[in-house]
Amino acid sequence: MEPAWIAVDWGTSNLRAWAMGADGAVLAEAASDDGMGKLSRDGFEPALLRLIGPWLARAPMVVACGMVGSRQGWCEAPYRTVPCTPLDPVALVMAPVTDARLKVSIAPGLKQTSPADVMRGEETQIAGALRLLPGYDGVLCLPGTHSKWVHISAGEVVSFQTFMTGEMFALMSEASVLRHGMQGAGWDDAAFDAAVSDALSRPEKLGARLFSLRAEGLIAGLTPQAARARLSGLLIGTELAAAKPYWLGQRVTLIGAEKLSAAYARALGLQGVEPQRLNTTDCTLAGLASLFSQTEGAR
Amino acid sequence: MEPAWIAVDWGTSNLRAWAMGADGAVLAEAASDDGMGKLSRDGFEPALLRLIGPWLARAPMVVACGMVGSRQGWCEAPYRTVPCTPLDPVALVMAPVTDARLKVSIAPGLKQTSPADVMRGEETQIAGALRLLPGYDGVLCLPGTHSKWVHISAGEVVSFQTFMTGEMFALMSEASVLRHGMQGAGWDDAAFDAAVSDALSRPEKLGARLFSLRAEGLIAGLTPQAARARLSGLLIGTELAAAKPYWLGQRVTLIGAEKLSAAYARALGLQGVEPQRLNTTDCTLAGLASLFSQTEGAR
Repeated sequence: MEPAWIAVDWGTSNLRAWAMGADGAVLAEAASDDGMGKLSRDGFEPALLRLIGPWLARAPMVVACGMVGSRQGWCEAPYRTVPCTPLDPVALVMAPVTDARLKVSIAPGLKQTSPADVMRGEETQIAGALRLLPGYDGVLCLPGTHSKWVHISAGEVVSFQTFMTGEMFALMSEASVLRHGMQGAGWDDAAFDAAVSDALSRPEKLGARLFSLRAEGLIAGLTPQAARARLSGLLIGTELAAAKPYWLGQRVTLIGAEKLSAAYARALGLQGVEPQRLNTTDCTLAGLASLFSQTEGAR
Repeated sequence: MEPAWIAVDWGTSNLRAWAMGADGAVLAEAASDDGMGKLSRDGFEPALLRLIGPWLARAPMVVACGMVGSRQGWCEAPYRTVPCTPLDPVALVMAPVTDARLKVSIAPGLKQTSPADVMRGEETQIAGALRLLPGYDGVLCLPGTHSKWVHISAGEVVSFQTFMTGEMFALMSEASVLRHGMQGAGWDDAAFDAAVSDALSRPEKLGARLFSLRAEGLIAGLTPQAARARLSGLLIGTELAAAKPYWLGQRVTLIGAEKLSAAYARALGLQGVEPQRLNTTDCTLAGLASLFSQTEGAR
């Protein structure tokens, strides 16, 4: 198997790679937990070689995105400033390597000066979404640990805003006093819907509503599945309240993991917004492919 | 030293005890980290004996409050339901003991049916505050891991509301992505004040403003002390936005740790409210003393 190029999505926790054919087909894929977070600077090249060594016979170009390009990553790919296109092949940064079979380009993230905001990795998904939806004008929502709302116009990222919703859900459900009342993976749609509506109508009540999950568990028999769904609904509803200018009356497309995107789609549906949905990996690969083809074309 | 009785504040993380004289003076005090959270049911008596064994010559009465009376504690002291006085000696529960020198009474917490809410330990501080401020009518605010706002009228707790502000600050500053930008214990009053005002005027923006702390640290040189103070200001300001019916135009008294109470006092001062402040331990001891004296009087 001789890939034309190799796509790499290298985040804080995971490293994923795809051997790509010249026609855009995925020939093979591989993944490891060698995320940026656990590697020192000289650990990146060995980690990549462990994963993709067998694919390197013809020294194909590697195009990578994500936290691998942060200041704590393999080598820094300085943020580009919005408004701008999500990706620019000219801004790719070559990682320093010792193995002659490796040519590694890293895509930079985006920053917004005011209000201050940053992204790394999502810009590639955004570029991929614009490739999959040519001429797209509207809003992209990328739910996740740090959810992003992105305003797209004329192929550029005009503005974006990040919410810590996913990280707050993880901390609250696993590390706070609320964890006692939400064991398991159960779910309750009605509880989710009510919580989204509550949060949207009185978003400032979040701090008080969170503790009520604990209190109702103790004295009113709140079930773990209802508590879990309500926590999610409260946090997503609070996000939607703040992100209203992004979705109200806009065309919205969700890019994210299946279950989480479904929850966002449901919450938006309650507000009369019917978002389109794209698969994260499809978007990442389409974004990296656009970088590869533009780089090849420039040769 | 022969105490007339022994006061015990037994929370999730800590156990504190005071040997009390008949005149109300503190003869000795002791503390350990044998909190409720790390004890199984049969571990409570030995933990207490380790701490207060030397004080037990005349088998003085022990009056305890806090999580020791929860379902996972030494023995459950069922919640009393508001509106009611903060403490009632009739509702004290005797803990089962094997050592004949021990007589241990545990004070129950309070619950509110709708909206569901609970407290354990704070009811004793509240009773103490009402002893220190006879005839108090108004609002008590008890900042902490789970801050409580309490409406007091005619010596009774009329209603209360709990906010997870302290726990959110701990999780966000120590366990979330924000921890990278707020190392140390530095502080910046101006950043705190601005954040309180921001949060009070647009409380629904909390989720977005949190991530801006990270982004400004990365691209705009936000200092750790400003980031730390702003996180605190955002969370306290969001709490004040939701608790407005409790403090607007009310007499407010703060019961809490020195630094945290000072932050709440400052935030309330920005809104034109000048709260009185009481020391937590003073309130706890006054509350336990009121239980002891009423129990003695009933003999």
